[in-house]
Amino acid sequence: MEGPAGDDEIIMANDSFYEAFEAADMAAMAEVWEQSEAVACTHPGWPTRHGWKAVAASWESIFSGGDPLQFILTDTRVRRHGDTAWVTGDENLVSAEGPGGTVAALNIFERRAGSWLMVAHHGSPVMRR
Amino acid sequence: MEGPAGDDEIIMANDSFYEAFEAADMAAMAEVWEQSEAVACTHPGWPTRHGWKAVAASWESIFSGGDPLQFILTDTRVRRHGDTAWVTGDENLVSAEGPGGTVAALNIFERRAGSWLMVAHHGSPVMRR
Repeated sequence: MEGPAGDDEIIMANDSFYEAFEAADMAAMAEVWEQSEAVACTHPGWPTRHGWKAVAASWESIFSGGDPLQFILTDTRVRRHGDTAWVTGDENLVSAEGPGGTVAALNIFERRAGSWLMVAHHGSPVMRR
Repeated sequence: MEGPAGDDEIIMANDSFYEAFEAADMAAMAEVWEQSEAVACTHPGWPTRHGWKAVAASWESIFSGGDPLQFILTDTRVRRHGDTAWVTGDENLVSAEGPGGTVAALNIFERRAGSWLMVAHHGSPVMRR
C-alpha cells in the first residue's frame, strides 16, 4: 500500500529507527538522528533528554541494559507538513516470555539536505485498563 | 527574554493550550486544536487518540473527571522548522494536597492561515527514581 508522494521516505526513516533500536546498534541509531543540540528524546517513564549528547547516552544505556527489545509495530500513521513530518505508532513489545506491554510513540522527522532525520522521539507506556 | 522571531506566537499557542487545560474549558481547547482527522493526542497512560472527534471526547472526559488540574510549566523549549513547530516541556502538577507528579510533554503545532494550531499532544508520566 503506497502512501502519498514522499511518505515512503518518512516511513523508511521511521523503520530505520526501529531497526537500530531492535538491533541495539548505536552506529545505526546515530545515523537516524539529527546530531544537534535541538533534538529531544523521552523514553517511557524517563524525563526528556535534550541534545544529541544526552540522547545518545540514553540509547547507550538502554542498549547495554540486557536483551535487545523486539517490537511489533501497529497503527503507524504519517503526517507531513513541508519538510517536517511526524509519525505516531504503537510499539508492541515481544519478549522471550511472550507478548509484553505497548508503548505509544510520537516521532518527529525533519528533512535536511534531502534526508529525513529524527529530531524527537517520545514513547509512553499504555496502561492496561 | 525573547526567542527567535516567530517563537513568541508559538509560545502563546502553547500557553493557550495549558490555559484551556487548567480552566477545563472545552470551547477554548477546541480553538487551540486543528479540528481535523489528522490530529493525535496521547494522555499519560492512555492509548493514542486520532482525529479531532476522539481527541475532543478525551478532553471532555478529563474535564468532567473532577477537580481541574493545575500545572507549573518548566523547561519549555520551542523548535520551529518552516510552518511546523514543536514544543517540549514539563507539566508539574499541583494539587490541593501539594506538589504532584511530573508529566513530560511534546506538543506539535502547524501554522495554517497565519495561526499556529495544535496538531499533536503527547504527555507521559515521569517516574520517580
